Amino acid sequence: MHAYRSHTCGALRASDAGSTVRLSGWVHRKRDHGGLLFIDLRDHYGLTQLVLHPETPGFAAVERLRAESVIKIDGEVVARDASVVNPNLPTGEVEVRVQGVEVLSEAAELPMPVFGDQEYPEDIRLANRFLDLRRERLHKNIVLRSRVISSIRQRMVAQGFLEYQTPILTASSPEGARDFLVPSRLHPGKFYALPQAPQQFKQLLMVSGFDRYFQIAPCFRDEDLRADRSLEFYQLDVEMSFVTQEDVFAAIEPLMHGVFEEFGEGKPVSPIDGAHVFTNDFGETFEHKGFERLTYAQSMAWYGSDKPDLRNPIKMQVVSDHFRDGGFGLFAKILGADEKNAVWAIPAPTGGSRAFCDRMNSWAQGEGQPGLGYIFWSDDQGAWGGPIAKNLGQEPTEALMSSLGLGQGDAAFFVAGLPSVFAKFAGLARTRVGTELKLVDENQFKFCWIVDFPMFEWSEEEKKVDFSHNPFSMPQGGLEALETQDPLTIRAFQYDIVCNGYELCSGAIRNHKAEIMLKAFQIAGYDASVVEEQFGGMLNAFRYGAPPHGGLAPGIDRIVMLLAGETAIREVIAFPLNQQGEDLLMNAPTEAEERQLKDVHIRTAVPIKV
Amino acid sequence: MHAYRSHTCGALRASDAGSTVRLSGWVHRKRDHGGLLFIDLRDHYGLTQLVLHPETPGFAAVERLRAESVIKIDGEVVARDASVVNPNLPTGEVEVRVQGVEVLSEAAELPMPVFGDQEYPEDIRLANRFLDLRRERLHKNIVLRSRVISSIRQRMVAQGFLEYQTPILTASSPEGARDFLVPSRLHPGKFYALPQAPQQFKQLLMVSGFDRYFQIAPCFRDEDLRADRSLEFYQLDVEMSFVTQEDVFAAIEPLMHGVFEEFGEGKPVSPIDGAHVFTNDFGETFEHKGFERLTYAQSMAWYGSDKPDLRNPIKMQVVSDHFRDGGFGLFAKILGADEKNAVWAIPAPTGGSRAFCDRMNSWAQGEGQPGLGYIFWSDDQGAWGGPIAKNLGQEPTEALMSSLGLGQGDAAFFVAGLPSVFAKFAGLARTRVGTELKLVDENQFKFCWIVDFPMFEWSEEEKKVDFSHNPFSMPQGGLEALETQDPLTIRAFQYDIVCNGYELCSGAIRNHKAEIMLKAFQIAGYDASVVEEQFGGMLNAFRYGAPPHGGLAPGIDRIVMLLAGETAIREVIAFPLNQQGEDLLMNAPTEAEERQLKDVHIRTAVPIKV
Repeated sequence: MHAYRSHTCGALRASDAGSTVRLSGWVHRKRDHGGLLFIDLRDHYGLTQLVLHPETPGFAAVERLRAESVIKIDGEVVARDASVVNPNLPTGEVEVRVQGVEVLSEAAELPMPVFGDQEYPEDIRLANRFLDLRRERLHKNIVLRSRVISSIRQRMVAQGFLEYQTPILTASSPEGARDFLVPSRLHPGKFYALPQAPQQFKQLLMVSGFDRYFQIAPCFRDEDLRADRSLEFYQLDVEMSFVTQEDVFAAIEPLMHGVFEEFGEGKPVSPIDGAHVFTNDFGETFEHKGFERLTYAQSMAWYGSDKPDLRNPIKMQVVSDHFRDGGFGLFAKILGADEKNAVWAIPAPTGGSRAFCDRMNSWAQGEGQPGLGYIFWSDDQGAWGGPIAKNLGQEPTEALMSSLGLGQGDAAFFVAGLPSVFAKFAGLARTRVGTELKLVDENQFKFCWIVDFPMFEWSEEEKKVDFSHNPFSMPQGGLEALETQDPLTIRAFQYDIVCNGYELCSGAIRNHKAEIMLKAFQIAGYDASVVEEQFGGMLNAFRYGAPPHGGLAPGIDRIVMLLAGETAIREVIAFPLNQQGEDLLMNAPTEAEERQLKDVHIRTAVPIKV
Repeated sequence: MHAYRSHTCGALRASDAGSTVRLSGWVHRKRDHGGLLFIDLRDHYGLTQLVLHPETPGFAAVERLRAESVIKIDGEVVARDASVVNPNLPTGEVEVRVQGVEVLSEAAELPMPVFGDQEYPEDIRLANRFLDLRRERLHKNIVLRSRVISSIRQRMVAQGFLEYQTPILTASSPEGARDFLVPSRLHPGKFYALPQAPQQFKQLLMVSGFDRYFQIAPCFRDEDLRADRSLEFYQLDVEMSFVTQEDVFAAIEPLMHGVFEEFGEGKPVSPIDGAHVFTNDFGETFEHKGFERLTYAQSMAWYGSDKPDLRNPIKMQVVSDHFRDGGFGLFAKILGADEKNAVWAIPAPTGGSRAFCDRMNSWAQGEGQPGLGYIFWSDDQGAWGGPIAKNLGQEPTEALMSSLGLGQGDAAFFVAGLPSVFAKFAGLARTRVGTELKLVDENQFKFCWIVDFPMFEWSEEEKKVDFSHNPFSMPQGGLEALETQDPLTIRAFQYDIVCNGYELCSGAIRNHKAEIMLKAFQIAGYDASVVEEQFGGMLNAFRYGAPPHGGLAPGIDRIVMLLAGETAIREVIAFPLNQQGEDLLMNAPTEAEERQLKDVHIRTAVPIKV
């Protein structure tokens, strides 16, 4: 028989009754029942109930063992009485009568329990991660992560993609977030940087002719930490040659849909076989399949966010015309002050009560707003109520509310001013209304693409045109657009996937022509010499035959977080740093030895504490 | 039709004749033939021959294009005349008559060609990696790498392993090679380190109950570079719980055998279904299947190396008894001087010529040895020749040589002294003899396990007992062995896989008990407090229920290198650093900005050049 086990702790069934088995695992739970000792023995695969009689050899040793000790037992599988069968456990029809025990590793008194659901402070959990990881929820999350990544890989390979590794010790990149630096020993005074993403390398792979690349790629950003952010994270990095935006969508939609179907535990996932009609910002319409698409401008106008949670059915509307020159002086005045100003309505079906509207108003004030205008259906009056309705008059109010599809029992909220200023707040109010009124069916995965991001934006800070997002994206209309259009009207072939309000990935069709890239940078105020210096490697590569290419990079941790129903990224990473960027288990970061610093030609320069 | 291609450049066959197609790719080669322009259009998938008539729209533009420009063409597939079918090309039965061309990206004059096999200096290749990667050999190597890794992953998952990611920003580890440091921004004066290997984390995963772990893990060692070493490299990191050495072997043998069979292009791979008899260092014998096994002591004695190339059939032998008190004074004197001294023979079948023996002798002198004693079969004399034979006498020489299985036409070389000193040189001589005499059938993959490594060794430098290899390995005999045996006689459950003279992986059954670990470290002269300080995280974990566990970590880059028939690791990495640790394409390492250094609280301390 095997030295440690003939079966795992999840393997035994009624059909095994009568056989002699060997099991090893952790003492999950121990109970004394009329002189008998019952032990739930646990391993990665499951739980098996052991029974020890007082005369079982080793009984005394086991009796005094603490939970989480590791033991090996030999015993006989016995069918349980029908009355004590545990239907929730795959092994619940049997137990093992122990005939011999060996203690493989005795546990000291635990700093936190493994059995049970009790919440523990995160620092205790992280300092004892090896215990926390044995607990059911976290163990399941980490296994889920592994299975999700494995499924993604198989799906990508099945689609003809190949995985290539790109360097981790690489060059500091001038775009984006803060780099982690790695001092070089062989080159005094010089530094490698850890990649924020393999952006340039994946484009170089396309220029090198590899056609369809993916990588589950570790990325590093030295940013302040949040619940859904970590210093190191993984993305499904994807790039394809000789493609348009449609090809990228067609490759990634079945992947995302398939993964969420496979691991979503039956929650509905946005279908990809239905037909949609997409209207771009210029009013042109296109039919397409796959996930719903919104332009960036539409997403901001309808949802006040470029990562809308479409589980929330509320869609905001521009209702300026109802207020222009109308009876509600404040809004009429705002609209008159600047032609860019507007009034947006946030419909609130079923929200028709003064109490709810007041609560929303107080919430808005808590968010630093002067308040939140509203109209609500007053059952007392049998009419639309609230200050706006009173000022506007009952008939115009009725016209406004019925244009929003609202009636008896409903309400609507209003924000007025410059949309670019208030859109974000309006989006928050929409979310709040949806949540408070329980309009959101959380039990689903709602996907959409956000497309047609502006290529440039006006930087109020620097008083100049700057890139909105990614300087490497291809502007729609190419060089001609750059040379002839107002830069602020140019869209990029750039797109995000949003699911349930989380941005799952960004991507773009890239600019593969050096001259278009130089022109785009020139518009954003960068001299050709600066571009050559900072992006010379890639620019140079584009000069020797570059294919049109594009891709995207879904965030793995966020996908797993959504699938696991978690809201913190640390719950889906085996050994995460804490919110202060510390590893409490292995003690990192830590002081280096003088010799180590000398080896890599640096000294510390710690700020003096006052 | 698709914007860029209806087919890839490797897709068209005779059955496509008559269809209208669109292709995109690189201008691989361009030839002018009687006014017609022939172009080999290349993409990731293959080559397709295009034909342009002078009247084809765009003819002039294409005619002046440089190789490696990227074009898109529309045209008609035409069957080639039987006389010009190219049987070496999957698309060789057809060509495409071009009807329209669009230049997608024009190539400037190339710093190195893509077409052809001409060798180029490595620095030019690395600085233009995007061109080098388009060349057939390198492109194939990188695709091979991707397929090998994908196959390894599938095989591991099929065996019930799950892949888990371990941290890359982690703690500096006091064992092993030099760490790369990453200064922390949030914790002034402190540093993360990049993992030399996920050794401690994979053991923590076992303690966390994950049972069967693997990871294609990036590892980082700041060591001086060699052909088969790189600052960052990948290993197939594996760890298993509740296992003995036999279980690890049984898991990894089918994997290695399968991968080498799959990608070895038909070269024979050591079988894993044959029976072997293994004799340990204490003379006990065991039958087993799988790869051949040698103890460390046997490998050193027979091959002068712990990574023997078993394609070389030469096995060295101890022949001290033939020289003790014999006629060859030098060896007799050496043997008399110290009972540890010995004489080893390196049999050289077919090496029986003075010229060859003299060549070997000169080579040995080039290696810093006084010379290399030999006996060879002299056809002139019809007897054994050379100084040793002369001194030893013909009859003892005959006895010696026939004990080595040698006869007419053969030779043997001899080294004498302290084996621990000369073994390595003897091993080199064995390799040299095998190569020079063409005894090595290079066209195969010969695997073996090296087992039973000594747990401790005598450190001449520090005049104390120290760990031979890995302090985390379980000593054979456990705590009792540590408490009762001479440390230098204790073996560890530690093993390597060697293939064709390359160490492909190291592994061990780990020490999972804190008290055994503390005792082992004590023997190596480390105080408990030092161990607690340096390995506290893991030691602590072992105190709360640790399963017996073990694993190994085959080097991915070396596996691919062997399969690709390359001798430099840089030939199987898409974007390697050069031998000076520089990325010539992206310019790394490079100076950091003052602001970046300040952010992470360091200053450079560059040595002053004199």
